[in-house]
Amino acid sequence: MPPLRTALLQSSGRLGDVAENLKALDEAAERAAQAGAGLLVAPEMFLTGYALDLDDIPGLAEARDGMSARAIGEIARRHGLAVLYGYPERDPGTGTVYNSAQLVGPDGESLANYRKTHLFGCFEQDAFTPGDTPVVQAEYAGLTIGILICYDVEFPENVRAHALAGTDLLLVPTAQMHPFQFVAEQLVPVRAFENQMYVAYVNRTGPEGEFEFVGLSCLAAPDGTTRTRAGRGEELVFGEADPVLLADSRKNNPYLRDRRPGLYASLV
Amino acid sequence: MPPLRTALLQSSGRLGDVAENLKALDEAAERAAQAGAGLLVAPEMFLTGYALDLDDIPGLAEARDGMSARAIGEIARRHGLAVLYGYPERDPGTGTVYNSAQLVGPDGESLANYRKTHLFGCFEQDAFTPGDTPVVQAEYAGLTIGILICYDVEFPENVRAHALAGTDLLLVPTAQMHPFQFVAEQLVPVRAFENQMYVAYVNRTGPEGEFEFVGLSCLAAPDGTTRTRAGRGEELVFGEADPVLLADSRKNNPYLRDRRPGLYASLV
Repeated sequence: MPPLRTALLQSSGRLGDVAENLKALDEAAERAAQAGAGLLVAPEMFLTGYALDLDDIPGLAEARDGMSARAIGEIARRHGLAVLYGYPERDPGTGTVYNSAQLVGPDGESLANYRKTHLFGCFEQDAFTPGDTPVVQAEYAGLTIGILICYDVEFPENVRAHALAGTDLLLVPTAQMHPFQFVAEQLVPVRAFENQMYVAYVNRTGPEGEFEFVGLSCLAAPDGTTRTRAGRGEELVFGEADPVLLADSRKNNPYLRDRRPGLYASLV
Repeated sequence: MPPLRTALLQSSGRLGDVAENLKALDEAAERAAQAGAGLLVAPEMFLTGYALDLDDIPGLAEARDGMSARAIGEIARRHGLAVLYGYPERDPGTGTVYNSAQLVGPDGESLANYRKTHLFGCFEQDAFTPGDTPVVQAEYAGLTIGILICYDVEFPENVRAHALAGTDLLLVPTAQMHPFQFVAEQLVPVRAFENQMYVAYVNRTGPEGEFEFVGLSCLAAPDGTTRTRAGRGEELVFGEADPVLLADSRKNNPYLRDRRPGLYASLV
């Protein structure tokens, strides 16, 4: 398989304005497709914005096959690429609200939907219910794609679970804020290296409510290199997830083969 | 408690010459004590050198209370500080040979002895039997000290197990070689941050047999900073493990409280 050119949309869109954010996503998808990308990744909660009033979140939350999902399916279809986006999800059965991310294929159909399992801080814990499925994957472009959201990736256990399940490219929409630049700059490349996978970490940017998002989105590779790194502002950056480099790197790096699961009992 | 000033002895000593390496350790302990250190950490296999002929290792291996252990106890006592050193250990009962590290207190008595659980590459797997005890700790200077060796620290599971067991300062004697600088520079600070502990990573340096050791020893802190970082050559560097900074950092960083062990079953 050829490398998967991946577009990282570093942007905060407009807080609370779904129509505007769908338009921004459409424009980014057009630019990404023109640049040869097969996948566009948008940040955590890109659909609605992140720093919402708690009272507004249930009203903005949508089912995974709701109106916005259909609109984004249409964007993906029109531009012929897959799209991963963060949004507040309402389970139509229970009414429960999750912090979710959905991957839509170039045919407009959902490939996977993930509910954030590790909620960060009081705001998220008040706004959302945590998901209970640690590993969500889809096959796309010859790669096994996995999804985590923001704080999830900071727990080595979550990324290891993906590695053990065969994830090749982990998509991590995020809302990473000052003063946690260390995570974007240092921790994410280490996750890619120690688990022998690609990690696409895609952040919001600039001030929003009480938060100051730090940008610094990146595509980290299994060989410890960072294939693309955004600055602090709005940006669309590109990097390639290359199955050949991945296979070579895994051949040379025996982390997953040298694990001794029998010694890790205290972790669970 | 006041901070524990820790001396990192970045040196390869002399291959196969135990007497010479004991002398170098004695000199380093003297300099460390004069500089106010309460702990001196030497690299993996410092006692004998690392790139030994396989046939020579059983003869060089000693019991944990063998002649060299007594000599190092005397060094620790004379200079009034604790010493951590790597050595090939022979179990006197079974004759089995381990890649071990021992911590000796300022009274000359052993505080802890750890047998490397994750052996790296063919050379180590031919030379040693892996240990089966993942977490070895000792109390010293008001801190819970843990021990891992080199490749062990690259597995997030091993360091997490220490964090869950309450390790404050993890000592990691190592023999880190080209081209794995990424581990020293990037991965070690991430381990300290994601587990909210200090990590003292102490490497060999220069060429030895087929290996080229990269130096870059460091003391990484729980706040993501690197308190001291050596270059590529022989060096004795110092950093402080501060219980106050550690407690503050843990208060502000909820990683260990926010874990969801019920989701990590695939790791074991």
